[in-house]
This record gives sequence, C-alpha cells and structure tokens, in this order.
Amino acid sequence: MDARPIGIFDSGLGGLTTVREVRRLLPGEELVYFGDTGRVPYGSRSRDTIIKYARQDVAFLRQFDLKAVIIACGTVSTTALDILCQENSLPVLGVVAPAAQTAARRTRSGRIGLIGTQATIRSGAYERHIAQVRPDAQVFAQACPLFVPLVENGRTRPGDVVIETVAAEYLAPLKQAQVDTLVLGCTHYPLLEAVIRSSMGPQVELVSAGAEGARAAAELLRRSDALAPQDAPGGLKCYVSDQVADFSRLASLFLGWDVAGQVEHVDIDRY
Amino acid sequence: MDARPIGIFDSGLGGLTTVREVRRLLPGEELVYFGDTGRVPYGSRSRDTIIKYARQDVAFLRQFDLKAVIIACGTVSTTALDILCQENSLPVLGVVAPAAQTAARRTRSGRIGLIGTQATIRSGAYERHIAQVRPDAQVFAQACPLFVPLVENGRTRPGDVVIETVAAEYLAPLKQAQVDTLVLGCTHYPLLEAVIRSSMGPQVELVSAGAEGARAAAELLRRSDALAPQDAPGGLKCYVSDQVADFSRLASLFLGWDVAGQVEHVDIDRY
Repeated sequence: MDARPIGIFDSGLGGLTTVREVRRLLPGEELVYFGDTGRVPYGSRSRDTIIKYARQDVAFLRQFDLKAVIIACGTVSTTALDILCQENSLPVLGVVAPAAQTAARRTRSGRIGLIGTQATIRSGAYERHIAQVRPDAQVFAQACPLFVPLVENGRTRPGDVVIETVAAEYLAPLKQAQVDTLVLGCTHYPLLEAVIRSSMGPQVELVSAGAEGARAAAELLRRSDALAPQDAPGGLKCYVSDQVADFSRLASLFLGWDVAGQVEHVDIDRY
Repeated sequence: MDARPIGIFDSGLGGLTTVREVRRLLPGEELVYFGDTGRVPYGSRSRDTIIKYARQDVAFLRQFDLKAVIIACGTVSTTALDILCQENSLPVLGVVAPAAQTAARRTRSGRIGLIGTQATIRSGAYERHIAQVRPDAQVFAQACPLFVPLVENGRTRPGDVVIETVAAEYLAPLKQAQVDTLVLGCTHYPLLEAVIRSSMGPQVELVSAGAEGARAAAELLRRSDALAPQDAPGGLKCYVSDQVADFSRLASLFLGWDVAGQVEHVDIDRY
C-alpha cells in the first residue's frame, strides 16, 4: 500500500485523456498533473528540445513525493523515456510499450498502422517494441502534424470538411496498406476517434496509447502492492505553464468533468 | 550613419517575411534574427506568457550592439510593445502602428477588416491605433488560430480544400461587413495572400503588417541618419531556440533565399 500521489505529465491538454482513464481504473489515487501549455506542442520539435522539456517537467513533478510518473504524452514516451528512466530513481512509465504489446497481440494479419506526431514517427520506438512481441509484424507509420492543432481548435466532429479532409489524407496510405489494427500514438487522438473510425472502417481495431499506458500503470501498481488505501478518496491537482483559466476551460472537454479551482500556474523554465 | 546591426525577432518563421522586406528596402544593413522555434506559436498563449517570452527574446538580441529592434511578430507587437519600449534604451519598433496608419489612410468606406492571432485580436491594439488616425473608422476583427499551423504545414495553396474552407469560415464575417481594406495582422499571413485575396475578392485592399513594419523601420532609420554606410555589403545571421536544420529548411520558403550556414542554436530560457 502506498498513499503517495502519481505524477502525470503531457505537453498540454492531451494527457488528460490518460488522467481520465487512470481515474476510472484507480479512483482512490491522488494524481498530480502537469501540462506544459506554455510550450505546447512538443511533437513538431527536435529530439534535443523534447528531452530538455521532458527533464524539466519531471524535475517539477518530483517536487512532490511521488510513487510513480506516467508520461501521458506520445512524443515524450517515444523520444525521452530511456533517458528519464535512467535519471530517476522512481518508476517512469510511458505509453509505447503497453500500446505496442496490445497492438501486436490483437492484429490478425500482422499489418499494424501507427499514427502520431512527427517526433513519434521519427523515433521508430513503436517498430522496435512491436518487433519484440511479434517479429513478423509490419508497421505502417504516418505522422499527422495537423491533428493536435485541429483538436485544440475543436475541429473533432465527423462531418467537418477540414478534419475529414486532413484525416482522409493522413490515413489513406494506412487504408491502402490494409492494416487491421491502428495505434493512436498521441494522447490527443482519442478525441478524433469517431473521425478516424469512420475513415478507417469498422473492421480496423483502434488501440489508444494513452489508455493502454494508464492500464499498464494500474497493473504495475497493483502487482507491486503500491495502490492507495482502499477507502482513499482520490483527487487531482493540475499545474500548467501558461494561464490557468485557458486550461480549465478546455480541460473539461478532455476529462469530462470540471477542474476549476484545482489548477495552478508554474514557471517551468526554472526547473 | 550607423553600421551597427538591426535586431529582428518573431515566435518562429513568420518574421522572415519582414526580414525579406527589410533586406529589399535596406540591402546594406546587418540583420540579426531570432526565431523562438522552441516555443512557437505565441498567438494562442496568455498575455503574461507572451510578455515573458518577448522579454527573453529582446534580452538575447541585446547581447549584440544593436541600433534598433524590430518586432516582426504581430502577437508581440500588439501585446508587449509598450513594455519592451519602456524597458529598453534603444528604439523598439512594432508592426501595429504602421499597419494601422496605412489601413486608416487607404480605406474609402472606413470599414477595415483585421485578421490575426487570438492574442492580437484580444489586445484591441489595432482599434486604438486606427481610431487615432481616423476616429470614424469601424474595425471588424477576426482571430484565425488555425492559420499559423496550416502555414507551417505548407497548406498555403489556392485549391487546397483545407485552407480554403478554414479561410472562408474566418473571412465570412469580414466579407459580410463589406470591409474595403484588410489588415494581415500576423507575419505568417503573407504566405496566404493568394487564398485570402481570392476569398475576399479583388476590390479589397490587403495591408501586410510585417511589410508595413519594415517600411516604417526603414523610414525611421533614414530620418535619424542611422542607416549603414552606402557601400556596406549587408548580411543576415539567424538564431533559433529549436533545431537549426528544421529552421534552415523552412526558412527559404519565407525568405526566398537559402540561409544554410547562417543559423545557430540559442538556449532562450537562460535570458
């Protein structure tokens, strides 16, 4: 049993889809979330910059006495997980290995699609993890650089010609490759599930990296007897590097509940 | 006569459209450009964060012995110009006043459209400057938050259904208001000129804030006898806060010439 909080971070709002999943699986846990809204997006930046920002994010979260850190960001998970694990003495959990394992187990044809940010696709991290479980699988990867700005501007609805056109362009090579499983490698993408599902067709199984990461983190805590006491009320405290009000307004879209009064500002470049 | 360089900065690549104009008007000047590519975009961030970033940008540029600083960023010009002027002992020039004056002079009907980032529209800076020149003018303002990510992803061509649809949505209220002059209040927008022109129609005059800012800076230097010597060769040195290679590749699109070898990385949060 371990009553200490779990730290969770992302470049901005996307990681809240993972927070939602962790809350659903482990309602008694205390969660401390950091969203780097002053520097979002990460996915179009270079490896060095992503590593620098991720180190600062973890350094801030470690101000709290945490039992684990979940990287609720596809870009950081694919680009900086090894470095963060080496540099920190507590468990640092990403979304790649859990999502890659699930995709590799579920595919029937061995043809797996992967969508993510430019940094995620460039990293090759999913290909490596999938090959470990299923060496014969083929991964068809596609960067979707406009998905994050479109989601953050609320263009998520099926029928919107802008998101439909962009999604059709990005997904065409994956449809042509006849993948039967598609990894949503960025924690913003669950908000595009309806658009992606209608473009790919009902026969393609979607695997959400953020949800798989949450599930794997819950399993690890359970196995290592590090869950919060059963009667703990649980809670969520959020920190952001840009304005609190802007975050609070959009956060409900990702979380499904209101976080007003639970959000504070932090000067992330001091860490 | 003043042979010292001019500092120019922007959140990222957009300001290079202003650099191009300065080079055209004043080919003998030494220019030092800073693009905050590690933290772009600015336009969707809060006022406090924009001011903090702008202060760091100017602090970095002032490492050089400059004769003036041009804010080649619509967002910083509307949000932080006063503060930067107060805090610095050299001329700091924005794009708002020159563009507002040109628009106020050119409009016949007194109905002026303004497009820019969320921060630019929120600031109300254009309305204040236009009212000084032409108190009877009406300004119709529209934030275009998706234009910067679309430009940075190369979606600038007429006929592209994505940029055409987004532009038509943003510009519809301005067409309905029958503006006869439209201020492009962000230095990224000149790359969308063809799309905007075809949506607004040939009767609407476009005023580019970046180009007007460059023209006003050239005039000021000429009037104060601070131009470089006539036979000076001129030059451009660029600094960026993310990776040099990514910037160099895209910069040619904005500049129209190659900057490879003239770009260096800088750790902007040390300033």
